[in-house]
Amino acid sequence: MRIDGLQYANWSEEIFRQMRQGGMDAVHVTIAYHETFRETVLNFEKWNQWFEAFPELIMKGQTAADIDTARATGRTAIFFGFQNPSPIEDDIGLVEILHTLGARFMQLSYNNQSLLATGCYEAEDAGITRMGRQVIKEMNRVGIVVDMSHSADRSTIDAADISERPIAVTHANPFEWQPALRNKKDDVIRAVTENGGMLGFSLYPHHLRKKPNCTAADFCEMIARTADRFGVAHLGIGSDLCQDQLDSVVDWMRRGRWTKEADYGKGSAAAPGFPPMPSWFGDNRDFGNIETGLRAVGMSEDEVAGIMGGNWYRFFASSFGPRGS
Amino acid sequence: MRIDGLQYANWSEEIFRQMRQGGMDAVHVTIAYHETFRETVLNFEKWNQWFEAFPELIMKGQTAADIDTARATGRTAIFFGFQNPSPIEDDIGLVEILHTLGARFMQLSYNNQSLLATGCYEAEDAGITRMGRQVIKEMNRVGIVVDMSHSADRSTIDAADISERPIAVTHANPFEWQPALRNKKDDVIRAVTENGGMLGFSLYPHHLRKKPNCTAADFCEMIARTADRFGVAHLGIGSDLCQDQLDSVVDWMRRGRWTKEADYGKGSAAAPGFPPMPSWFGDNRDFGNIETGLRAVGMSEDEVAGIMGGNWYRFFASSFGPRGS
Repeated sequence: MRIDGLQYANWSEEIFRQMRQGGMDAVHVTIAYHETFRETVLNFEKWNQWFEAFPELIMKGQTAADIDTARATGRTAIFFGFQNPSPIEDDIGLVEILHTLGARFMQLSYNNQSLLATGCYEAEDAGITRMGRQVIKEMNRVGIVVDMSHSADRSTIDAADISERPIAVTHANPFEWQPALRNKKDDVIRAVTENGGMLGFSLYPHHLRKKPNCTAADFCEMIARTADRFGVAHLGIGSDLCQDQLDSVVDWMRRGRWTKEADYGKGSAAAPGFPPMPSWFGDNRDFGNIETGLRAVGMSEDEVAGIMGGNWYRFFASSFGPRGS
Repeated sequence: MRIDGLQYANWSEEIFRQMRQGGMDAVHVTIAYHETFRETVLNFEKWNQWFEAFPELIMKGQTAADIDTARATGRTAIFFGFQNPSPIEDDIGLVEILHTLGARFMQLSYNNQSLLATGCYEAEDAGITRMGRQVIKEMNRVGIVVDMSHSADRSTIDAADISERPIAVTHANPFEWQPALRNKKDDVIRAVTENGGMLGFSLYPHHLRKKPNCTAADFCEMIARTADRFGVAHLGIGSDLCQDQLDSVVDWMRRGRWTKEADYGKGSAAAPGFPPMPSWFGDNRDFGNIETGLRAVGMSEDEVAGIMGGNWYRFFASSFGPRGS
């Protein structure tokens, strides 16, 4: 079974076909960065059109059982998530509405301070806000996973403690391996995984040691060492694949509508666009390179199967229904 | 089985308890008159709060099978509908989004011309518009019933012909019995029922012969004669109960935001508010009076059971899923 914990591609029939070629059973896709509720609904509508246009390639995923259906019918189940709480605006009632529409992951902040939590690029991190506590409770009730990939450390540890269901960092790597602001320090990974949560390893070059020059062996060695320290059952892939996107999109991701000034994130004025990918991971057909690499660093078949999808499957199965279901 | 084809009450725990006392298994409730999409979502949110607050009295209804669940657990299944297409704004993609949120009925127009069809108070009726044809097709595809209760005659007959699934007039009476603009002429009732559609009989006083002085016997006699002419299987109740509403609400229903001038509909400057109800039908506990009345005019037990809910049940069962399901 192969499940990817995060992608944000410029979707097309070609990419959906590559998902099939890569044997992807399920992919968590981002449908909002800074979108308002109404703009997010337009993105749900766009996906409805794709589901109608390509019923033999993709299907909407709402429960882990949908992954079984997708496998049985040779399709990829698409699960929706937001990288920022902007789709709920200031209205907690939208949490359940968006779950009904199919949202299954929501980051509590994206780089900046949000109404709920602090982002990883802020100077100060005051932890989860008053509204944040209420929204975590509501997400727990209806079955939307708290995702802290772009949040700051204290907020993330707070969220892991406050949430009564396991949380996730869908796409990031250990800070110890590559000290990017977006990667996660040991105490953050510990808080997330100790409470039953998941860490998805990212292939986004700025999150990789030696960036695009990171080898599959380096990447898989890092996974094996993280498994030794935090337990293999809590680990999966969250590739952060941003295939075929124009550079204007990374600008939207970084700047949304919150600033009029340049903001390059981990890029620079000289290299403001998406960074080039490692040669061994360019699209959904390359997941086999990770699987091969994990075997090469000595992981067992069971461990490899867990990392490639089994662990996300179990997490999906316990996370997306109403609490207690 | 008891099913009401339309209500728009000022909802409260008291009314939900009266639904149980009246043995209501399912009620189609209006959640939009002139609301935009976002305002309609606020109304879905309000209902989510009621479902959470009163889980022993009501549950969300999405399929006919939910009525069985409601009966088995002693609750009333609430089905959602709009009296106007305003919630889809100018965006056909919102049809599926709103179906996913739970919408199961949508009127193509409410008294006035809409983007889709003509309303019953307009001087000219040009029939179903270009967008109207597209939206009917989309409603057919996803499973939202075309409701023409407040539409004009030609538009209604057009809709019955264009729609590839049966349509409904959820709440109106024969014009021949009571010549209100909102009641339906024979050729309209024929077009709707010939194509497998449903007519729900209204208890709204302006739709009744002698208005609040209409007796249960008069009302039930009218039902029996309509059954003789159009077939009992196509008939149900659509009470149009507007219990506990303030008069400001009937003003919103009539004027929305489309005029700054007074508009009294079937009321008048002297009596601008909701009209008083007949003594024998004040709330959900009074459905038994209709059942008794139908027996008194000589209908068989099967016929009575059909009118009181069985016919709506069959219609719900074939109308709310994707086409061909």
